Amino acid sequence: MTQTPTERTRVKRLNKRAHYDEATIHPILDAQPMCTVGYVFGGSPYVTPTLQWREGNHIYWHGSAASRMLEACEETQVCVNVTLFDGMVMARSAFNHSCNYRSVMAFGTAHKITDVAEKEQKLKTFVDQLFPGRWEILRKMQAKELKATTILGLELNEVSAKVRNGPPGDDEEDYALPLWAGVIPMVTTVLKPVDDPRLIAGMVPPDHVLGFKIG
Amino acid sequence: MTQTPTERTRVKRLNKRAHYDEATIHPILDAQPMCTVGYVFGGSPYVTPTLQWREGNHIYWHGSAASRMLEACEETQVCVNVTLFDGMVMARSAFNHSCNYRSVMAFGTAHKITDVAEKEQKLKTFVDQLFPGRWEILRKMQAKELKATTILGLELNEVSAKVRNGPPGDDEEDYALPLWAGVIPMVTTVLKPVDDPRLIAGMVPPDHVLGFKIG
Repeated sequence: MTQTPTERTRVKRLNKRAHYDEATIHPILDAQPMCTVGYVFGGSPYVTPTLQWREGNHIYWHGSAASRMLEACEETQVCVNVTLFDGMVMARSAFNHSCNYRSVMAFGTAHKITDVAEKEQKLKTFVDQLFPGRWEILRKMQAKELKATTILGLELNEVSAKVRNGPPGDDEEDYALPLWAGVIPMVTTVLKPVDDPRLIAGMVPPDHVLGFKIG
Repeated sequence: MTQTPTERTRVKRLNKRAHYDEATIHPILDAQPMCTVGYVFGGSPYVTPTLQWREGNHIYWHGSAASRMLEACEETQVCVNVTLFDGMVMARSAFNHSCNYRSVMAFGTAHKITDVAEKEQKLKTFVDQLFPGRWEILRKMQAKELKATTILGLELNEVSAKVRNGPPGDDEEDYALPLWAGVIPMVTTVLKPVDDPRLIAGMVPPDHVLGFKIG
């Protein structure tokens, strides 16, 4: 589905980089759990990093029920941003330097998940999407833990993606300059898991840990 | 210098992770140019990713003079966030899962750099801090390019860092469970530079490209 951009989501600068379709937006959200949530509190803008996960046409984030961020976001306007920084774009002039990136901005009113069973299902989805099968082997979630956790959701109905990839775009006359130009690609690398110092003997990282990837 | 936290920067949740000293804050800002800038426009919160750089006790970001984000931020309250996502913290219960991260939030009024010579010096610093010596070899910046570029700055006088590292913190009784627990570390890896398809013959990546690191 392709959305019609709104006044907030219409990409005004370099709009050839703009996308409004799920086929572009969903993979970006699924590639990077780290997001920033923007909200207004006491008249000031705040930007708080947290992890998001997607289920269908919604994204969710969570935290302590005592979190100022979550309380400030509930039933009010938020802007959630997910950005993957894919590389430095090295041009022949300072002006034409750029970055390669994939970025999503989602606007809307954050809603709180209040039903306890729904909260637990959402957290299971969050864990299992990142680490398939982990939820089942963990110590079971306690009622007091569910109570101490707030989950907020945002429907993805006012969203845009902005994507840049490929080589630099230099001024035509600059291509003749004797300078190296190109792209320095960057990726997130997952390193070897580090055992908890208190691990009991014989425990080894399961496949959902060894196979974890991001980006 | 250690700052006194304000109502906006005092870390309320998990405040053992909070830091207000330059020795913690500056290296985080210097490790990751990618940031998100939060601002309020037409009553709505916006979060826009862009690159920041630090000079002393200020950070700066830039873009097109036609940018809605830069126009909306000028002489008004912003919140700039820089986050390095260092790993997934795998506990024995879902509740105790976490992330390792280094994050900075900076609040204040963004100011515009208007002096042309100062603008050029700031852009030179931005380029040369990332790529030492690159500014000198580039095609010289043109007056029209400086005019088309807006630079905003923010004084770092209301800033906090929040940092988590190390193994999971499980409930005491959960340490006996036969489960793998630990940390999955993540780093940003810089890959081999990719030549511009229009590169002139014989050009090779200079040391400031081959030596580029992030994180």
